Amino acid sequence: MASQEIDALTSALARLPGFGPRSARRAVLHLVKKREGALAPLRAALVAVEERLATCGICGNVDTTDPCGICTDPRRDDRALCVVEDVSDLWALDRSRLFPGRFHVLGGRLSALEGIRPEDLAIDSLLARVAGGGVDEVVLAMNATLEGQTTAHYLAERLEKFPVRLTQLAHGLPVGGELDYLDEGTLAQALRARRPVA
Amino acid sequence: MASQEIDALTSALARLPGFGPRSARRAVLHLVKKREGALAPLRAALVAVEERLATCGICGNVDTTDPCGICTDPRRDDRALCVVEDVSDLWALDRSRLFPGRFHVLGGRLSALEGIRPEDLAIDSLLARVAGGGVDEVVLAMNATLEGQTTAHYLAERLEKFPVRLTQLAHGLPVGGELDYLDEGTLAQALRARRPVA
Ligand SMILES: [Zn+2]
Ligand SMILES: [Zn+2]
Repeated sequence: MASQEIDALTSALARLPGFGPRSARRAVLHLVKKREGALAPLRAALVAVEERLATCGICGNVDTTDPCGICTDPRRDDRALCVVEDVSDLWALDRSRLFPGRFHVLGGRLSALEGIRPEDLAIDSLLARVAGGGVDEVVLAMNATLEGQTTAHYLAERLEKFPVRLTQLAHGLPVGGELDYLDEGTLAQALRARRPVA
Repeated sequence: MASQEIDALTSALARLPGFGPRSARRAVLHLVKKREGALAPLRAALVAVEERLATCGICGNVDTTDPCGICTDPRRDDRALCVVEDVSDLWALDRSRLFPGRFHVLGGRLSALEGIRPEDLAIDSLLARVAGGGVDEVVLAMNATLEGQTTAHYLAERLEKFPVRLTQLAHGLPVGGELDYLDEGTLAQALRARRPVA
């Protein structure tokens, strides 16, 4: 075996998080043995996502439409806005189905170490959304890391002047924990017990 | 988020061996965030493999050419033929780079329980290859399972009439072990110490 094409597929899979060379080989073997049942559907799904992939101009979510499905969902509550560091956090919170409002993706967190400053994050667009009115509560759903909490404090200062309630996720999050790695039960608890920013 | 296309991609990945819903979600997120660096290469690799996928008419290997790369490799030794149950076993042995000859994939093993009989396996084509001459040694590289060893014994009887040396992998394989799960060192040892069938 080891044709150029099969090697390329193995390498591409091996670079996915959670995959290594060995599991990639097993996956490739599964794919080539189940051409109709596994390879074709995966190829079709990848092509469809790639063709339609878009970053939402409103919230920064990655979806197959712009604006994204969350921003255009009429059942969602415009009055609650949940700010997250990353798209993965948005997805994690959205899966919990406990937050009925909209989201805003910063695209990272402030980091002196990595030289990430406020102007590197989607903060101006956040302030514009809040300034636009109609928002009652902003949930600062940063990771429970030092940098995440620094970012939350920075945002709290910038948002102080607006007539909105600032809340953050309950400190039930494990210290150093990243939202995206938490089970949905922990996330649900943290979201239910969210409290005003001190 | 959870657009139809992204859900479909998550499901397709979650069905790969070694993947579950959670790791599939992380992989999808990685793909949508690295459209050029991860999604496009994976899509291209899948398309290329799917377009060219073929089962070798000589040995039963799955490759992007028919005959496969092993059957057409002029550096390989026609005199040694290694018979394996499955394509995954061929790939595992081929990775060890210790077997210089050709392969033959049976497509399974005899199983009274599952009703798999000799005529369900690529045994006639194996006998034809050996009858064609030029083969000095046939390695019966079945799995070290009861069914694998039953299959090896059956093949040994069918091949008895040919002037070939029948060998099997050294019994260093863990009992019940499947070739494809072994590390390459164990495989290499078993292949180096292969011995005549008693
Ligand atoms: Zn959006
Ligand atoms: Zn072949």
